[in-house]
Amino acid sequence: MRAIAINPSWPGRISFVPDHPDPVPAAGEVLVRVDLAGICATDLEILRGYLRFSGIPGHEFVGTVVRGSDVLCGRRVVAEINCVEPGSPARDPDARKHAAPRTVLGISGRPGVFAEYVAVPAENCHVVPSELSDREAVFAEPLAAACQVVRDHPVRPETRAAVLGTGRLGILCGQVLAAAGTRPTMIGRNRRTLEVCRRLGLPTCPVPELSPQWRYDLVVECTGAPAGLPLALKLVRPRGKVILKSTCAQAAELNLSPAVVDEITIAGNRCGPFPEALRLLRERKVRVPELIDAVFPLARGAEAFEAAGRPGALKVLLEPGAG
Amino acid sequence: MRAIAINPSWPGRISFVPDHPDPVPAAGEVLVRVDLAGICATDLEILRGYLRFSGIPGHEFVGTVVRGSDVLCGRRVVAEINCVEPGSPARDPDARKHAAPRTVLGISGRPGVFAEYVAVPAENCHVVPSELSDREAVFAEPLAAACQVVRDHPVRPETRAAVLGTGRLGILCGQVLAAAGTRPTMIGRNRRTLEVCRRLGLPTCPVPELSPQWRYDLVVECTGAPAGLPLALKLVRPRGKVILKSTCAQAAELNLSPAVVDEITIAGNRCGPFPEALRLLRERKVRVPELIDAVFPLARGAEAFEAAGRPGALKVLLEPGAG
Repeated sequence: MRAIAINPSWPGRISFVPDHPDPVPAAGEVLVRVDLAGICATDLEILRGYLRFSGIPGHEFVGTVVRGSDVLCGRRVVAEINCVEPGSPARDPDARKHAAPRTVLGISGRPGVFAEYVAVPAENCHVVPSELSDREAVFAEPLAAACQVVRDHPVRPETRAAVLGTGRLGILCGQVLAAAGTRPTMIGRNRRTLEVCRRLGLPTCPVPELSPQWRYDLVVECTGAPAGLPLALKLVRPRGKVILKSTCAQAAELNLSPAVVDEITIAGNRCGPFPEALRLLRERKVRVPELIDAVFPLARGAEAFEAAGRPGALKVLLEPGAG
Repeated sequence: MRAIAINPSWPGRISFVPDHPDPVPAAGEVLVRVDLAGICATDLEILRGYLRFSGIPGHEFVGTVVRGSDVLCGRRVVAEINCVEPGSPARDPDARKHAAPRTVLGISGRPGVFAEYVAVPAENCHVVPSELSDREAVFAEPLAAACQVVRDHPVRPETRAAVLGTGRLGILCGQVLAAAGTRPTMIGRNRRTLEVCRRLGLPTCPVPELSPQWRYDLVVECTGAPAGLPLALKLVRPRGKVILKSTCAQAAELNLSPAVVDEITIAGNRCGPFPEALRLLRERKVRVPELIDAVFPLARGAEAFEAAGRPGALKVLLEPGAG
């Protein structure tokens, strides 16, 4: 099969492999033909050497089950990324997410989805409602991650929320917060993505126009940059919360004394409920086609990663079936 | 009056001032004779230049009201450290703690208690129960801060809690967690303070004996050192909490990606309920005499700060009335 592969010994280098061996599903796994896959910031970090992942990257996808389960065969699915061995006591998605040992699709110990086929545990799959196109369903994984913000930190209409970073994940988080009934301010530096936010009905504030006063109850940090957290700490009110969404491989100089004095809560937050993500897509509460920048075949994977890494880039997709 | 003073232009230098002008209480304030005062890590940081405080430091004390309130005159009091102007809408202690503007006793914009007299807002005072000695009551402020941990983060008997750092604040936090019904592990490097923990009935674990496995639901970071938070993040279970108690003026290199992946909550936590602290002291749920290392007169303030800053030091007190 066609696939793209990376190796931490050559950070930044994407190899197109035209004749990669097909994956062989293990017990409890299904073989899925990948119809469409998305590149996210974690993939870009991994390409730079984060987690020293080696092999086929990628974890956002929609595909069609071709083998391994009578029930799922022929069905269009999306899949959760945290995988445990059959027989592991970690049965539900929340337990799998933090199980040790576990593998993570295209991130840790398991080949990912930037390939024609991928093997995933059947229990990780969610059937995609027929109303959704592939170009919508491919957002299920990052949208589920965005849903995890309000799952762990429920908001109310009066919650003053802000999203820091108007990239692909930031815009999904903003839409989820809006769907949950609050009216988040989208704070970013990129004119183009701020404009996308406005088109989606989200209030925006360019970083240079920020008032130096603290004022948000909840700041969702989605910049993916080391400077994001210090800025988030300045934007949150005393006893407010900063939600960390981006895994940023770089360590940063940070003084948390102000967070102690102001009793700020900083909460890591990752991977979320797929059913909720599929519901929001089906009910058109979250709009995703606006976020697609480009679709590339695997053979142009290097170009696709480059496009995904450009400032102001939104979602870049890979279409493994495309020649 | 006698006082000690510091100046950020001469970091590390303590001046004994034998003839400092007496404070003049403003409207709503009382004049308090300071009977006993305690040196804490924040004072040591301030001496190094933290917050660029200038003047009389100190915020932990017990004293006797001498002027400014018929009700309080002659009463022995302890006082909350966050002060607002009369007429400020921030009336209760929780609101005062985060009010802007505010002054903080011996920390920000207001002379502190390392002096014979101090002026504090009457509303900040709590009368000390007669059963308590000065040497117990002087712990009210740091003990209230320790109480804030379980106030913001309630524990249950099955909560696996650890306190990182076996200094004065760590031992108070450990005793508060124990009084709240859990059995915290006290983790430290100093043999002497670990021994004090054991004498107080708290289970201990020297840092070199830590298992590399994560295991605590709640880790209270009280080391006051930049290395504390990275270690706390290694000790906490996925979706667990790290409570930050120490304001450490130094910035540190920190990579919070593991906190995102494991969905850790890091919560700043400061200043707490005085009535709860006085109750714990009165009911002998928390023992403090074991924590007193030495008592110095103000004239030996430099020596007192030096003693308070030594590794393994516990509480060093200043007795302003002593010649």
